[in-house]
Amino acid sequence: MSVTTTSTAAISAAAAADDALRTPTDVATLADRLGRLADQAGRIGADAILIAPGADMRYFVGHSVGSHERFSCLAVTPDGRARLLVPLLERPGWAGTPVERLDLQISTWKDGEDPYSALTALLPAGVTGLAVDDYLPAMHAIGMRDALPGSRLALVGAAIGELRMRKDAAEVAALAAVGAAIDRVQRRIGEWLRPGRTEHEVAADITEALVQEGHSGADFVIVGSGPNGASPHHEASDRVIQQGDPVVIDIGGPSPAGYFSDCTRTYSVGAPADPEFGRVYEIVRTAQAAGVAAAVAGATCASADAAARTVIERAGYGEYFVTRTGHGIGLEVHEHPYLVAGNEQPLEPGMTFSVEPGIYLPGRFGVRIEDIVVVDEAGAPRLLNNCPTELTIVGDGTE
Amino acid sequence: MSVTTTSTAAISAAAAADDALRTPTDVATLADRLGRLADQAGRIGADAILIAPGADMRYFVGHSVGSHERFSCLAVTPDGRARLLVPLLERPGWAGTPVERLDLQISTWKDGEDPYSALTALLPAGVTGLAVDDYLPAMHAIGMRDALPGSRLALVGAAIGELRMRKDAAEVAALAAVGAAIDRVQRRIGEWLRPGRTEHEVAADITEALVQEGHSGADFVIVGSGPNGASPHHEASDRVIQQGDPVVIDIGGPSPAGYFSDCTRTYSVGAPADPEFGRVYEIVRTAQAAGVAAAVAGATCASADAAARTVIERAGYGEYFVTRTGHGIGLEVHEHPYLVAGNEQPLEPGMTFSVEPGIYLPGRFGVRIEDIVVVDEAGAPRLLNNCPTELTIVGDGTE
Repeated sequence: MSVTTTSTAAISAAAAADDALRTPTDVATLADRLGRLADQAGRIGADAILIAPGADMRYFVGHSVGSHERFSCLAVTPDGRARLLVPLLERPGWAGTPVERLDLQISTWKDGEDPYSALTALLPAGVTGLAVDDYLPAMHAIGMRDALPGSRLALVGAAIGELRMRKDAAEVAALAAVGAAIDRVQRRIGEWLRPGRTEHEVAADITEALVQEGHSGADFVIVGSGPNGASPHHEASDRVIQQGDPVVIDIGGPSPAGYFSDCTRTYSVGAPADPEFGRVYEIVRTAQAAGVAAAVAGATCASADAAARTVIERAGYGEYFVTRTGHGIGLEVHEHPYLVAGNEQPLEPGMTFSVEPGIYLPGRFGVRIEDIVVVDEAGAPRLLNNCPTELTIVGDGTE
Repeated sequence: MSVTTTSTAAISAAAAADDALRTPTDVATLADRLGRLADQAGRIGADAILIAPGADMRYFVGHSVGSHERFSCLAVTPDGRARLLVPLLERPGWAGTPVERLDLQISTWKDGEDPYSALTALLPAGVTGLAVDDYLPAMHAIGMRDALPGSRLALVGAAIGELRMRKDAAEVAALAAVGAAIDRVQRRIGEWLRPGRTEHEVAADITEALVQEGHSGADFVIVGSGPNGASPHHEASDRVIQQGDPVVIDIGGPSPAGYFSDCTRTYSVGAPADPEFGRVYEIVRTAQAAGVAAAVAGATCASADAAARTVIERAGYGEYFVTRTGHGIGLEVHEHPYLVAGNEQPLEPGMTFSVEPGIYLPGRFGVRIEDIVVVDEAGAPRLLNNCPTELTIVGDGTE
């Protein structure tokens, strides 16, 4: 998974017109989130919460920089104070960002210094309970533990998930905008998906189109043709697409504002060669609709998973549906809440997640259909992807 | 930092002819490395070493797959046994890789199951000392700690660094090949770097050229024009390049075999506008040569750093050299050994690292010159980049 950031493709009129692709989070919202993070510190009994570069940092301070092995960290204490420690050489990258308009102390450390001691010096005396970001590399988590005698590590991910998984109206609008952007790409698949081309060639065109339709880059471009579609996380290969192939196209990326799209459609290149394909396709389509319909406020994540899964199991393909039904989405492509067996989290208005059942027949083909759904104010599921789920046949010379 | 993987650019004749860009590590070497990792477990007193997806995993088993929040782990015990736990849906991505030819148990876990219990069940009874990969996300490190009552976490990074920082002949050949590839790109900079173009436009062309010259993608493309060059980790922006601008071009990416290039040159677009630029350039060039010359077997990392730094300090620019002098390079762009004050690690034959002093004048410009160096069998520094370090003036209409 990677983000392409250097394309110079011109963006489409639809993308240019949609401000919600670009609207940054306002500083008052960020300040409110930081306050709620400090409240979480108190709630979970942490003396300090340590946030790593990435989506969590962007969520709370509107920006994230952080490279490789050098330690960058946002530290928040129950008293509501926040401080940001960054490597000196990365300090210029924070200039002009919302961080400078927040009530936040920014400190730096320099190559050759010990960054863990530097952060320890910024924390109140007596800190021992460290709640660390789920994605903080172990080297930094353990570095901080060892710099604070008697300290112990716990995870803050669930507590942050409590905040991030409930989107406000601006976040839902941002996800709807990037959902419309990926829909525009899916509607153009027939321009590129033809027999005789390799998966890589098709993926390169799609990558370009993601930017044209309003993404800041492509994060993943899965082109799973024929048997490759039976591997859910196959990306793209030099396989030449054949007449009659089913092709799984699972694509997404961030908007300039940082919110992700993620949409899958399964196409047929000409009339399907495998006689079982049509039946499998309709089972997945029915399962996906059932999963969406079940995603109402008050239902649990597990029950939405079960709604889609039951359709596939009853049709006799249960053993070929090898994944959970969905994942939350926002500033990350995978985040809380996860639609998976055992997750008794109730769905609430403002939660956004994928519904993406599939059937994967090893050595033959795969079918997956995926939309992003938001639970609306009335508690009903609303689709943030709106390209058709009916089977689309491409590359038969009619485009 | 990101890797672009979907380009369809045709590769150059020089890239096509250089097999060292593509040669995979042979299985016997991987097996030997796994054996030495097990020895390290014994040496550091770890009951189990847990390796995360990424460069460490590629180093030991020749392949790495692993996405997002799902747990994938290579676990090695002092008895020499290795096992790989991966999510069921990613298992197809391991088919046909060297892992299947190693003496290695591959197990899977499925969405909805607890992966930490699954790995615990694969380990010998009584494991409490866990040595975890530096880059293992905290959620997985703490997940394993909590799944093994009484266990404690330590870092394995230094012990792995002992292995990875000493390259064998095949690794040095791989780094030389990708070094030659990035040299070919640097020699072509005049094709793209001209007044009136944006940094982003130049970066897009360079990204394409990295693939043409033999990289599997671009990992970083820094185009720091004018004042942007004063931020060492600036990437690229919409700034329009001006006549007279100094421009820092710091670029690199992995070869298909997985070894990284990293080379910086600073160009002038036409005659330099800032009267101090020529003097600063020559100081950096002298410092860089001094750093390379000091990188002999038996010298320490700190002494090589000091050799470059002293030149800049004596010239009166010490406060503007805000980074360490260099970093190791191999399957990662930054790895052990680091050329930084305080690092008393002696240099040895087979070590490979950057030498990249710079002077960064805020609001004005930056100058950085960077080559990759290997300490050869005779203990002398050998450059793996060989494009000229003399100032190159581009975009003055003579190309």
